Amino acid sequence: MTDYLSDIEIAQKNEMTFIEEVGAKIGLDRQTLEFYGNYKGKIDVNQLKDKEEKAKVVLVTAITPTPAGEGKTTTVVGLGDGLNLIGKKAVIALREPSLGPVFGIKGGAAGGGYAQVVPMEDINLHFTGDFHAIGAANNLLAALLDNHIHQGNTLKIDVNRINWKRCVDMNDRQLRQIVCGLGARVNGVPREDGFEITVASEIMAILCLANDLNDLKTRLKQIIVAYDYENNPVTAGDLQAEGAMTALLKDAIKPNLVQTLENNPAIIHGGPFANIAHGCNSVIATKTAMKLGDYVVTEAGFGADLGAEKFLDIKCRQSGVRPSAVVVVATIRALKMHGGLGKGDLQTEDLTALEAGLPNLLKHVENMTDVYELPTVVALNKFPTDTDKEVALVTEKCAALGVKVILSDVWEKGGEGARDLAEEVVALAEQPSELKFAYEESDSIAEKIEKIVTKVYGGATVQFAPAARTMMAKLESLGFGNLPVCMAKTQYSLSDNPKLLGRPTDFTVEVSRMKVSAGAGFIVVYTGDVMTMPGLPKIPAANKIDVTEDGMITGLF
Amino acid sequence: MTDYLSDIEIAQKNEMTFIEEVGAKIGLDRQTLEFYGNYKGKIDVNQLKDKEEKAKVVLVTAITPTPAGEGKTTTVVGLGDGLNLIGKKAVIALREPSLGPVFGIKGGAAGGGYAQVVPMEDINLHFTGDFHAIGAANNLLAALLDNHIHQGNTLKIDVNRINWKRCVDMNDRQLRQIVCGLGARVNGVPREDGFEITVASEIMAILCLANDLNDLKTRLKQIIVAYDYENNPVTAGDLQAEGAMTALLKDAIKPNLVQTLENNPAIIHGGPFANIAHGCNSVIATKTAMKLGDYVVTEAGFGADLGAEKFLDIKCRQSGVRPSAVVVVATIRALKMHGGLGKGDLQTEDLTALEAGLPNLLKHVENMTDVYELPTVVALNKFPTDTDKEVALVTEKCAALGVKVILSDVWEKGGEGARDLAEEVVALAEQPSELKFAYEESDSIAEKIEKIVTKVYGGATVQFAPAARTMMAKLESLGFGNLPVCMAKTQYSLSDNPKLLGRPTDFTVEVSRMKVSAGAGFIVVYTGDVMTMPGLPKIPAANKIDVTEDGMITGLF
Repeated sequence: MTDYLSDIEIAQKNEMTFIEEVGAKIGLDRQTLEFYGNYKGKIDVNQLKDKEEKAKVVLVTAITPTPAGEGKTTTVVGLGDGLNLIGKKAVIALREPSLGPVFGIKGGAAGGGYAQVVPMEDINLHFTGDFHAIGAANNLLAALLDNHIHQGNTLKIDVNRINWKRCVDMNDRQLRQIVCGLGARVNGVPREDGFEITVASEIMAILCLANDLNDLKTRLKQIIVAYDYENNPVTAGDLQAEGAMTALLKDAIKPNLVQTLENNPAIIHGGPFANIAHGCNSVIATKTAMKLGDYVVTEAGFGADLGAEKFLDIKCRQSGVRPSAVVVVATIRALKMHGGLGKGDLQTEDLTALEAGLPNLLKHVENMTDVYELPTVVALNKFPTDTDKEVALVTEKCAALGVKVILSDVWEKGGEGARDLAEEVVALAEQPSELKFAYEESDSIAEKIEKIVTKVYGGATVQFAPAARTMMAKLESLGFGNLPVCMAKTQYSLSDNPKLLGRPTDFTVEVSRMKVSAGAGFIVVYTGDVMTMPGLPKIPAANKIDVTEDGMITGLF
Repeated sequence: MTDYLSDIEIAQKNEMTFIEEVGAKIGLDRQTLEFYGNYKGKIDVNQLKDKEEKAKVVLVTAITPTPAGEGKTTTVVGLGDGLNLIGKKAVIALREPSLGPVFGIKGGAAGGGYAQVVPMEDINLHFTGDFHAIGAANNLLAALLDNHIHQGNTLKIDVNRINWKRCVDMNDRQLRQIVCGLGARVNGVPREDGFEITVASEIMAILCLANDLNDLKTRLKQIIVAYDYENNPVTAGDLQAEGAMTALLKDAIKPNLVQTLENNPAIIHGGPFANIAHGCNSVIATKTAMKLGDYVVTEAGFGADLGAEKFLDIKCRQSGVRPSAVVVVATIRALKMHGGLGKGDLQTEDLTALEAGLPNLLKHVENMTDVYELPTVVALNKFPTDTDKEVALVTEKCAALGVKVILSDVWEKGGEGARDLAEEVVALAEQPSELKFAYEESDSIAEKIEKIVTKVYGGATVQFAPAARTMMAKLESLGFGNLPVCMAKTQYSLSDNPKLLGRPTDFTVEVSRMKVSAGAGFIVVYTGDVMTMPGLPKIPAANKIDVTEDGMITGLF
């Protein structure tokens, strides 16, 4: 591997074209494309109001993640380039990366190898400022809330029932649990509090689900920040916060345009957590891409049980977007880890381990074809250690489900490495299909959760802790019973136990608590603890990042 | 006043020209000017490396501020437009506004009336993201610091001697004093902490004093974040933080170009607090403006005792910039408040109050002409209530000091209202002059403070609290004795007592403590408490800010 260039070296060697030329490929003129430097732009969606959302949407999802990696974002980028290569006008739609992980453990969200979006340094560092704007809107709401209490608390907010946290786009465990408002009366009201990372803010989820600026404002107004002494919800609207928050977000809501290494258009916008939120890029970005291309390739966070389930049951349900095909990404290495191998044991052929791990892939595939009834293909990201027999085994098992396996080699070859995958995706997308949801809006909250657990996760039953039952009743009495549910579950297993790899069965999922994200429009259902503020590792990636005298960034990846 | 349009209404009615046309006026091509939307740009200073800093610099400062206002920023904008009107190529260089005050008490930093910089909504909300980048760099350093302690603390940092705070660009009193790291071992180490507003971060001061990217990195490395158990300094360099911090600031360091209502170029960049820091726009912005125009009009924060003193003794000393003329801004209304009148009593002629308040202006003027030996003019911002006799009195008293008083009416007339002022400034700038500092680098820390207090403030003596004396000795032993001092003092009086208006004499300034900002390169000297995290008022301005369906912001001012 030492002969390979790093991602940032490949990206920096690449020749970018000016953003207006990328925009011109999909019909964006100066009026519609606002430049942010020479290689980034924001799209003024008001100018595209009358255009039809005509493109076919391809959802890229994956098996349950392992430390071996599966290459989902890389596949999106490569598939987009591959589609362009075979003559289709394709636009990719990805999530924006968070600053936190950039400085923590090496890793970003701009693809890899020869399937990247650029300028990758900018995309990974501030980009066009969207996350900072979300952080500012989040923290303005927090400041207005505490100021209201400090100035007399006419809304009778119970300081022990505040559920609006401040946020920062940083891995900073020190802020997870704090006591604020200390020292003197002029410093506010003492209370327990904590920070989340910006991507965990409900405002991130709202920005990603809003249809337009007006819908954004309406949703911001509905955020429940606390409950009063009589346990009634207090909203951002009660604090008259939604106008100023919307003002802070007026540019952040515009989708960002960049390019792939092959100079094809990439829209990168929004990036909510895939556990406590829905984990997809923004509805506005997806719909804008649908107006500008013939194909839109997009992704959902983590494995298909979390990411695709929420993409389909939340984002598609709320927005009306319907995918025409699904790509499930897997690697033989990762499947062997699901079959019980350690990360050091993946270099040699092991059909037994592969066969033991394969059911994980098959379950995700079945979910796509049987639960959601969508045309599906498996993209197998090639590694030099894969053997022909191993590939044949995966192909045979998937064929039994009526699904093709296509080898993909986008990391090394870019779009050329996804030519076959692109052909298959086009064939699938031409089949008629109709998305079926895993549950209906009219189901009770408990029924929704049970359907996800039994149909999508493959579990047996759901157990509700008393706190969860109480809240469930309260949320139904407050009129939130018809909202979709957003499962907060470990990404490392189909079950709620991160140690159960492969395809666990007969398990019970334990729901510890729930809360409503009334602005985002879903009920967050917690199964176990979910960390909303990561920490830095012993040797943070930040220690190796540097800048040369003329402004070139090094050591980013 | 009800017939007048609000600032935002005037700004929104105005016809902006595309930023490339503004850039073209001062020779900026596509290679050098990076667009941020259609009306904002960042200047790639690397492209201007070989250009000479040839422009004459005009410093605009003011009397001691009162609730009546004096219109310093407005004068900078109007004077810039006025100079362009009389055929001089003038570029203005201003500070960027902080988000905090925008949502607190109505007020911004984009000028007013017909002397504004636009787009004012953007300038006041995120702008090009510089402050968020500074906040991120600040908070990355904090996270790395606490992570170091959590991971084993090999640097032996004393948690009771940490002086690096986190920051947020928000008026949020609730965060002034907190306890963080609570709950469990995985949540870090419990300790007392607090947040500052972003403009108070040392990184803001560093960005504004750095000569280039490399100097920025060197300064960041020198930041002292804490002391260890043996009371030795621990720096950002010890935490290997400077590379990643510089990466976060690589775009923030580029000066921003916008335009005045009269479509003249305005560079707006950086905005450090004028009490705990030096309160001027960035050195890079000033020097860039000096390469692009024949005249640069810039400002310094608060009254001339704070802002101009630091502009001259810190910024000019560190950067080599030398002003050719100084404008001291005053209003008759404000001078009458210095003479003892209340804000409600300013409508009628009152020569007695004016005469009583005038010494405030005269002291600031004397400082410019006698201490710093710079050609000086007084700009009297016109109000309808001013009488001829009042104007004559100000003119007569200033004439006795050899300084002209020029009426200025930029709020209502824009550049046209500063035509006379522009002519006088050109005449002054053609006089030979040589800046004299108030103190020498080689003076001891105590001598520097004493010279500022006696020569600039007009006080009698300085008293040092024991903590200040101890720190002063420590800083000298650590080798910081040759740094300039940055006085943290109330802006409402020439003395350290905000109640002493006019021109107090015979007072003693009490120094309570001091600290070194080793990256910025100055010693902060505290006289009384300085608030580095403001709070919101009872009815925050945020409550009235809104956005129309097509993205137009209302209620901003």
